[in-house]
Amino acid sequence: MNKTKIQEYIQHVNAEMHSKLLDVYTTPTELYDPVKYILSNGGKRIRAVMTMVASSIFSEDQTQTIAAAIGLEVFHNFTLLHDDIMDKALIRRGNPTVHIKWDENTAILSGDAMMVLANIMISKTPSSVLLPVFTTFNKTAIEVCEGQQLDMNLERRDLNTQITEDEYLEMIRLKTSVLIGASLKIGALCGGATIEQADALYNYGIQIGLAFQIQDDLLDTYGNEAEFGKRIGGDILEGKKTYLLIKAFERASAEDKQLLIENCKKTGISADKKIALIKDIYTRTDIQKITQQKIDSYFEKASDYLHKLNIDPSKLSTLVELEHMLSKRNK
Amino acid sequence: MNKTKIQEYIQHVNAEMHSKLLDVYTTPTELYDPVKYILSNGGKRIRAVMTMVASSIFSEDQTQTIAAAIGLEVFHNFTLLHDDIMDKALIRRGNPTVHIKWDENTAILSGDAMMVLANIMISKTPSSVLLPVFTTFNKTAIEVCEGQQLDMNLERRDLNTQITEDEYLEMIRLKTSVLIGASLKIGALCGGATIEQADALYNYGIQIGLAFQIQDDLLDTYGNEAEFGKRIGGDILEGKKTYLLIKAFERASAEDKQLLIENCKKTGISADKKIALIKDIYTRTDIQKITQQKIDSYFEKASDYLHKLNIDPSKLSTLVELEHMLSKRNK
Repeated sequence: MNKTKIQEYIQHVNAEMHSKLLDVYTTPTELYDPVKYILSNGGKRIRAVMTMVASSIFSEDQTQTIAAAIGLEVFHNFTLLHDDIMDKALIRRGNPTVHIKWDENTAILSGDAMMVLANIMISKTPSSVLLPVFTTFNKTAIEVCEGQQLDMNLERRDLNTQITEDEYLEMIRLKTSVLIGASLKIGALCGGATIEQADALYNYGIQIGLAFQIQDDLLDTYGNEAEFGKRIGGDILEGKKTYLLIKAFERASAEDKQLLIENCKKTGISADKKIALIKDIYTRTDIQKITQQKIDSYFEKASDYLHKLNIDPSKLSTLVELEHMLSKRNK
Repeated sequence: MNKTKIQEYIQHVNAEMHSKLLDVYTTPTELYDPVKYILSNGGKRIRAVMTMVASSIFSEDQTQTIAAAIGLEVFHNFTLLHDDIMDKALIRRGNPTVHIKWDENTAILSGDAMMVLANIMISKTPSSVLLPVFTTFNKTAIEVCEGQQLDMNLERRDLNTQITEDEYLEMIRLKTSVLIGASLKIGALCGGATIEQADALYNYGIQIGLAFQIQDDLLDTYGNEAEFGKRIGGDILEGKKTYLLIKAFERASAEDKQLLIENCKKTGISADKKIALIKDIYTRTDIQKITQQKIDSYFEKASDYLHKLNIDPSKLSTLVELEHMLSKRNK
């Protein structure tokens, strides 16, 4: 039932994204073809659906909300486009990234255009809530830039510079959670929520955003390859600074700390061997359990914020369903 | 007298840009240091001053206008930052460009942050005019992206693909004039102008923007090096598609067309020789006069739009002074 609702929102968002944006902004084609490419290239429309679902808690009619929902989705895809240049990523959702399929200049400029298109959609928000929506969007957008910078800073640092858990959590809060929070808050505002209700949903979004991100880290090492959809152990092979790695380093004995640094840098061994070496240390530091507890604690805090909303639980069922879908806990 | 007013606006804009923006957004320093660098790195603040001057036509008090003025200036500098990456430019206002002083990733992300900061400043516009200001800003921002794309398209094309004057004019309209027009329109709106008055100023801005850009092309070849501040003939040496080159090719005999193509590509001759060879063809096609006439015609159309405003000429004196300063006609 709710899954159908979510599917409906996805279809509605995709249809309106075409009619309001992709079919309107077409020339010069060199600028807009990459925009169409990345926005048509799959993606779960999580932010747009969040916006619509949050709005539906307060209103039967989402016509006031759809533009902002699309704006948030376009902004998210803009960040992916530019992040892919910075990370030199080759593949996004199974297809070549824009800077690979075209070139870097195209990726920079088409990304810039997407940022403007996101603002164009935000500006179609009803004037009664335009200011709080625009302000929330801007605050979030600058935080996402800050998060990307913190991520690059972390990736440049050595493990033994004592990267703290708090630093990591602040990075993922800015890089991913604030946009989940903002999507919910903006949806709520468009649907007629009070500022207090919108803020409670924002805080809920921050918690589930943190939970999702740490869960991604966990599944990358301990997930089921078929369900996860990516090669298990990819983060370990890339030497990515994940919650698992940072926490393991914090908890490891002096000897294991040294081993972790050495094994992370080790080359000339098979992928499976490298993954196994790191996972050995993860086992000794109890990382799988510790990480799962952290995820659970964020979902619990999220649930507390939902209760604070003091709204008939039946109105929250689609949101809760969406959270379960995304947390893969329904599998 | 008016010059003092313009100086006052520049100082006010610089002071407020620091207190409202550069002193507020400081960490992570890796993100914001380049923003501070490009925004403190000289620049004539033309767009911000245009905004303030347009506002002053309709209001004694520019406190409602300063935020938007800064937003427009920050947006302009964002476009310079990203354009410099795309153009692989080494120097901007006598200093290393951001992607040279730092690196390309820094330049991409700091540019993105500047685009958001521009929107943050725009959002501080009084709510009574926020929607038209925001809409004008977005429309302009997407046009500037389109203009940059058209510029890159033109630069990639060969002269003998018959680049038309209209294509060139549309490119410079989008790449530079619309932001001059928008600065005036947004300033007018913040100052309390009617939509009709704001639109007249927008159209005035388009005309002077076109005039300034073509004048830049003219001065690059026929200017006085000391006054122009750049090496004369730089455009010719770079093979840049300027109004002069496109118009000369259009007007040239079949023989001169061929010569123009050959001379543009010629290497292994001195800079002076190359400039002289191209200028010979410019002389035969009467390009200096033709170009000056085009510039004059835009200034005349601009003047017509000012008259349409039907406002006491004394109120327009600072604007006219600013136009003269920028057109270098006061020298």
